[in-house]
Amino acid sequence: MPNRGNAQPIGVFDSGVGGLTVFREIARALPHESLVYLGDCARVPYGTKSPATIIRYSLEAAQHLVERGVKMMVVACNTATAAALPALQQRLAIPVIGVVEPGARAAVAATSGKVGVIATEGTVKSKAYSNAIRALDPSVEVIESAAPLFVALAEEGWANTHVAREVAGIYLEPLIDAGIDTLVLGCTHYPILRATIEKVVGDKVRIVDSAETTAATVKALIGDSGASGIPVHHFLVTDAEERFRRIAGEFLAAEIERLELIAF
Amino acid sequence: MPNRGNAQPIGVFDSGVGGLTVFREIARALPHESLVYLGDCARVPYGTKSPATIIRYSLEAAQHLVERGVKMMVVACNTATAAALPALQQRLAIPVIGVVEPGARAAVAATSGKVGVIATEGTVKSKAYSNAIRALDPSVEVIESAAPLFVALAEEGWANTHVAREVAGIYLEPLIDAGIDTLVLGCTHYPILRATIEKVVGDKVRIVDSAETTAATVKALIGDSGASGIPVHHFLVTDAEERFRRIAGEFLAAEIERLELIAF
Repeated sequence: MPNRGNAQPIGVFDSGVGGLTVFREIARALPHESLVYLGDCARVPYGTKSPATIIRYSLEAAQHLVERGVKMMVVACNTATAAALPALQQRLAIPVIGVVEPGARAAVAATSGKVGVIATEGTVKSKAYSNAIRALDPSVEVIESAAPLFVALAEEGWANTHVAREVAGIYLEPLIDAGIDTLVLGCTHYPILRATIEKVVGDKVRIVDSAETTAATVKALIGDSGASGIPVHHFLVTDAEERFRRIAGEFLAAEIERLELIAF
Repeated sequence: MPNRGNAQPIGVFDSGVGGLTVFREIARALPHESLVYLGDCARVPYGTKSPATIIRYSLEAAQHLVERGVKMMVVACNTATAAALPALQQRLAIPVIGVVEPGARAAVAATSGKVGVIATEGTVKSKAYSNAIRALDPSVEVIESAAPLFVALAEEGWANTHVAREVAGIYLEPLIDAGIDTLVLGCTHYPILRATIEKVVGDKVRIVDSAETTAATVKALIGDSGASGIPVHHFLVTDAEERFRRIAGEFLAAEIERLELIAF
């Protein structure tokens, strides 16, 4: 359990900018907590990398966050959660929360029996969502599908364009035809495209945004006895800080301060 | 100058799979030369990274190729060429050829005065093509534009889809409206989308494919006194070899053999 009622920051780790959707929801849910966001922009994306490489990178990032005094760590990247969460939980003395388990729990609560999951190639290949959902309820049918172009569309600022709607149609129609009643946004970039995705799947399919459900999990852990006062957020990136600043501005709809380039 | 008439391989370096378009053209132009292709798939893409990081990664890759006994090195990545070619040429004792200079030379030969260049964010920001073209002919006007979604479309196998045509229209129409007569494909992924790009720009705009022009430059250096006999090609990747095998199969329209996972 984290130290309750203390002002130590919460660490949020992602391969790049996608985890900012999780950052945003945690900041909303816990407006008095300070956050340290670490984006491994030098080595992004993780979605096409092997599990061994992802574990190595995640441990390096975690070590850096621990040195910054974080009281808990959120792995705000589905690919890193799928590949590295057990290794992180084993090695770190602070609590580590991933985005897959909260998403799976929300999906099981929402579904009538058939869940679709869209994610990166790495996450789909890991079957992390299928395993997590079936562990909670073996009767739920899960269909996982990779939607890699969504990341590029979100980062290009094209989330609400005609191209994005067309791409969403191509990725999502097989899931709709298969009769899913719930769709998990299994990559932290995808909430940026939520409005477009909702238009394609219609209002009969419930959307599970793992950023929201992860923030709720963090709040449940920290409780009402978290930090009080004005939060101070820091952003650490391993490369390309100007690009990060631009995309973070779009993702958070606000200018970011305290951006630092780090190396490890 | 490379050792002429010897059977040492030619090294081809790229951040990932895009350089396979250059590999393909070199193998076509010099059918008796053995090639060693190194794709830094663990750290792809370079297009969004800083010059300092790209130089560091490129030197590591070059060192590995030198240890494999290559007689020359082709930097088959526009971003790496733009950021790291001088550093590589300074540090290595073998000839190093990039893709920007051959592309710029071909553009100057083709144009009537106005050249468009599409490339990654990193290459556009470096102004490598503008500088190289103006150094050859200061009267040529150059318009550079980033087209980052083309990479994702090529890797997804969507090069000839309706989505690709629509994206190409969005990226290329401002260049067409500006009156370009020549278009440089300034990212090694883009030749995969050549047919789609040609449909959008029409037959009045000449396409310069830096893969072809780079292969011609290599051939000019090696000459007719290159290796003879049956070539043996090796592929080295720093991660995700199965993904590489799949995409390489599409890019080269052939199954690849001798694929090796390396670390450095």
